[in-house]
Amino acid sequence: MRGKFLVFEGIDGSGTSTQSALLQQALQTRGIKCATTCEPSDGPIGNLIRQIFKGRIKVSHGENPHRLGGDLFDEQMAYLFAADRHDHLYNEIDGVHQLLERGATVICTRYFFSSIAYHCSSESDFNFVYELNKNFPNPDLIIYLDNPTEVSLKRIETRNFKDSYENKDKLNQAKDNYRKAIENYTGQIIQIPANDPVNVIHEKILENTLKLYQ
Amino acid sequence: MRGKFLVFEGIDGSGTSTQSALLQQALQTRGIKCATTCEPSDGPIGNLIRQIFKGRIKVSHGENPHRLGGDLFDEQMAYLFAADRHDHLYNEIDGVHQLLERGATVICTRYFFSSIAYHCSSESDFNFVYELNKNFPNPDLIIYLDNPTEVSLKRIETRNFKDSYENKDKLNQAKDNYRKAIENYTGQIIQIPANDPVNVIHEKILENTLKLYQ
Repeated sequence: MRGKFLVFEGIDGSGTSTQSALLQQALQTRGIKCATTCEPSDGPIGNLIRQIFKGRIKVSHGENPHRLGGDLFDEQMAYLFAADRHDHLYNEIDGVHQLLERGATVICTRYFFSSIAYHCSSESDFNFVYELNKNFPNPDLIIYLDNPTEVSLKRIETRNFKDSYENKDKLNQAKDNYRKAIENYTGQIIQIPANDPVNVIHEKILENTLKLYQ
Repeated sequence: MRGKFLVFEGIDGSGTSTQSALLQQALQTRGIKCATTCEPSDGPIGNLIRQIFKGRIKVSHGENPHRLGGDLFDEQMAYLFAADRHDHLYNEIDGVHQLLERGATVICTRYFFSSIAYHCSSESDFNFVYELNKNFPNPDLIIYLDNPTEVSLKRIETRNFKDSYENKDKLNQAKDNYRKAIENYTGQIIQIPANDPVNVIHEKILENTLKLYQ
């Protein structure tokens, strides 16, 4: 039987990694084969993206001279994340599609919603990013952790390396974009307030996830 | 004054690199500031693409389970070439756009026509690749070197490293795709038979190019 493709989404610092780990453990306890992964992936394109975020590889910045209001950095990232998403889904070593076909449940932190959340600041950007991502399959379930921006910022402060997306304006915009993406989405999604105690959040997620296996 | 953006296109072994070098020399002799470049670019994303062609980095192969008739390798390359094209155009170190703004003529071997030529084998592929590339600006002139497949194959045989695209079927398909791309193109383009002596071809290219500076 084909495994389930579960995706965590949420602004930085909303606890997606913690909840992903807890969910994996809970599913495995119930005898469900389960792998966790994330985007950017740990493949070669994902690695390139991480080096760009750390500033070790420089890419374009500023306004696109050929697309009104287009931000070069966001565009560059949108192209690269689409390329990485394709590799993450379909590569023959540890691609998501292959794992699912072999019956494993795949829990992925971030997927195409993140591209919408982080690479858009106008209607024209939305069209561009939707178009780039339209061929990627929907997950069986998206779990959106809805966190207040202030709480996210506080959590982020304690980390060593802040990437270039982690500031208040960007997080607020990402939150707005998530809202739009959710409104337009026709697949399965649950929204969970991310400010509750970790275990309360986990129980809600587990309850909803287990329904997929009934 | 903004420089001219000149693009060479043609199937492998049609002499684009030779003609690019000859054109650069001829323009420089006439006092025109001139840089040559190519795609995949020599930037970080272009480098990744070259490692994939050499087989040092593995990516997906086979049919896309989520897009009828979609070839995973071609799709992966299409996404990566679009990401590389954006970086090649807009990066702040040696991006094409910046060179043009600084008044240099840029001679580039391969641009978006190559994505159409090499990553398409159906109408659905065409739409996918056109969509991926629709935001990139047209060059001032595309110089298409029209070479018989047999002549290209003979030239390719003498090279050390053959990449995975260099076989007869792929070259024939690329030639057909170039024809379609040219038919649909509304920008400036010249088509030159590539089987003539090198100097005859060069003279034709130079004559057409110099018109842009009048």
